[in-house]
Amino acid sequence: MRFQMNKDKLLYHLVIVQKALSNKTPNPALTGIKLEAFKDHLQMTTSNGEVSIHKVVRDPSLSVEQEGSALIPGRYFVEIIRKLDGQNVLLSALEDNLLKIEADHSDITLNLLDLEDYPHLLFKESAEVIKVNVRVFKSLIRQTAFAASSVENRPILTGVYIQLNGNQLTAVATDSYRLAKKSIELDQSYGKTDVIIPSKSLEELVRILEDNQKDVELHFSPSNVLFKYDGTVFLSRLLEGNYPETSKLIPGEFPTEVVFSKEQLLVAIERASLLSIRDGQNAIVKCEIRDDDVVEISSSSPEIGRVLEELNPVEGVKGNGLKIAFSSKFLMDALKSFNSSEIKVGFTGEIRPFVMTGEYDPDSLQLILPVKTD
Amino acid sequence: MRFQMNKDKLLYHLVIVQKALSNKTPNPALTGIKLEAFKDHLQMTTSNGEVSIHKVVRDPSLSVEQEGSALIPGRYFVEIIRKLDGQNVLLSALEDNLLKIEADHSDITLNLLDLEDYPHLLFKESAEVIKVNVRVFKSLIRQTAFAASSVENRPILTGVYIQLNGNQLTAVATDSYRLAKKSIELDQSYGKTDVIIPSKSLEELVRILEDNQKDVELHFSPSNVLFKYDGTVFLSRLLEGNYPETSKLIPGEFPTEVVFSKEQLLVAIERASLLSIRDGQNAIVKCEIRDDDVVEISSSSPEIGRVLEELNPVEGVKGNGLKIAFSSKFLMDALKSFNSSEIKVGFTGEIRPFVMTGEYDPDSLQLILPVKTD
Repeated sequence: MRFQMNKDKLLYHLVIVQKALSNKTPNPALTGIKLEAFKDHLQMTTSNGEVSIHKVVRDPSLSVEQEGSALIPGRYFVEIIRKLDGQNVLLSALEDNLLKIEADHSDITLNLLDLEDYPHLLFKESAEVIKVNVRVFKSLIRQTAFAASSVENRPILTGVYIQLNGNQLTAVATDSYRLAKKSIELDQSYGKTDVIIPSKSLEELVRILEDNQKDVELHFSPSNVLFKYDGTVFLSRLLEGNYPETSKLIPGEFPTEVVFSKEQLLVAIERASLLSIRDGQNAIVKCEIRDDDVVEISSSSPEIGRVLEELNPVEGVKGNGLKIAFSSKFLMDALKSFNSSEIKVGFTGEIRPFVMTGEYDPDSLQLILPVKTD
Repeated sequence: MRFQMNKDKLLYHLVIVQKALSNKTPNPALTGIKLEAFKDHLQMTTSNGEVSIHKVVRDPSLSVEQEGSALIPGRYFVEIIRKLDGQNVLLSALEDNLLKIEADHSDITLNLLDLEDYPHLLFKESAEVIKVNVRVFKSLIRQTAFAASSVENRPILTGVYIQLNGNQLTAVATDSYRLAKKSIELDQSYGKTDVIIPSKSLEELVRILEDNQKDVELHFSPSNVLFKYDGTVFLSRLLEGNYPETSKLIPGEFPTEVVFSKEQLLVAIERASLLSIRDGQNAIVKCEIRDDDVVEISSSSPEIGRVLEELNPVEGVKGNGLKIAFSSKFLMDALKSFNSSEIKVGFTGEIRPFVMTGEYDPDSLQLILPVKTD
């Protein structure tokens, strides 16, 4: 293997494939980037067992003198390419399983990993290809995946449940204390299918998707899901099992409804959670909807003190007053997921879930379970 | 105590005094900011045992309704003031040792600390006041303090040795593997004196000094040093003991001299230390000054690989070729301390200290002890 390429272009692609590299893996081969040089293009592959990335690189600056392949220690390689001077870099595989990296006045030799130890990865496309505008797809993930569980005691809840039904694609995530749900409409209809994708995989995927008008392709197969976007193929394993039935949890009628300014509610909650800095995400905030159309947000900590915030909702309160308490982190996460500047909160009772929706976030809802206090 | 003040102005001063707050202290009183309200000004005091800050705050927005004082939990107070809405904040001490903080629609109550537990701090000025331009003083500290030791096995080396002699103020710091020294000229002459100031104190001090043409005042006393700058008084304890004699360590003649571009040398060292990422600051880099006026920078790690960099010095090498090895971190720290773009390195032998000076850094030098390799 021997080729030359513009250094910054090479780095651009490496930064993408490095997202599936793992530092800590029982299999050292997975700390490597598999690099294959063909006459007119490169192929890069990485995998950490959970997700795998495969990238075909074509660039006018690429000039392959000798085809071949190598398994290169990933972190070192990317850091070296990042720090090199000069416009171009020349890579050549030497005898004794070494890689020579030459640029400007630098001459670097890296010990390669053993290519034979690399797992055989199958990036297989499915017969049916679902196409989604990349910005729309990113919003689907960004508004749901954060609500998945981060603890492993119920593994199924660490995933995002994705349902395809006709031209509707719906994502649901819940950690059993809160739930996020969003649907998007596709340009055409497809067969009915559903999968559970690890939320961490989706969060990694979102990082390599850009904000443009291109499509991302979804290929479902029984144990994997494959995403294809702009020359990059991203493969994630699926979670096995049955996702809990969540639609019945979402109330349909709300005896009390309040419309808040998202920004005002957010800063009030932030201040109310200040006195619980040490507790981190478990800060509990109380909310009282008063009969005089004022909403009180409060929190107290016997050792530190007390915060009381008064908020005037955007419209008058519809329905009865009520007192409720909840995790400030969950509420802030939910609020931040919306694009809307006004958020409607529907309450069903002091110890029953409440639901948030936003005017400019169609088919998107956030549900939070309150906590009981004295 | 009851007063009103512009919130952003109050925050500006709190952010300065907070630098001497400690989270972890056996004395809970020291987690507090001592706030005193007088008819036309405030006084703020903080201390973590090592350094103490005292600040007199006068501001047109300040309106004191009732004089008084309080010991306020520092971190919570600063975070609350930072997060408040509205232009002004009203602070009032209530009964039961409580502080009420009111702004916009927020009403916050903080439990106060016990003012009686606060230590009596003496911010005493000395008879002789040494005045130094603040930018010049900052450069004195920035070019030396980093070389002090960060480990406590020889406590005296965690300090910076400051010597006043006539109109010369000299700072020296060493961790016994490297040494930094800089002198500045003062506008007038003073008596002869020397002190050892903890380098951490000086680094904190530098953070609250701005880049302007004002003077910082130095007041030396037997066990403390007091700095006065722009309404802020900064007190640090001194280290006791005799600072080692360092002037004999600095060679005066250099059989080999090389002038490098600082930037080129820095990136070559950075790349050479890449393969030792895991070792952190102990990456050892080799340097060979060849007879053909080329300088080779190299490093190798049997498991990972090898880096070889070729550098062309700014001028031809003066004197004999030589091979030397050193800590890449020490060299990068030293290089970064210079304002000059060209650095002259004087070598005295393969296992003897070498010295760096910069054309635009008068009376400033960096010395590094090489390490032995095979």
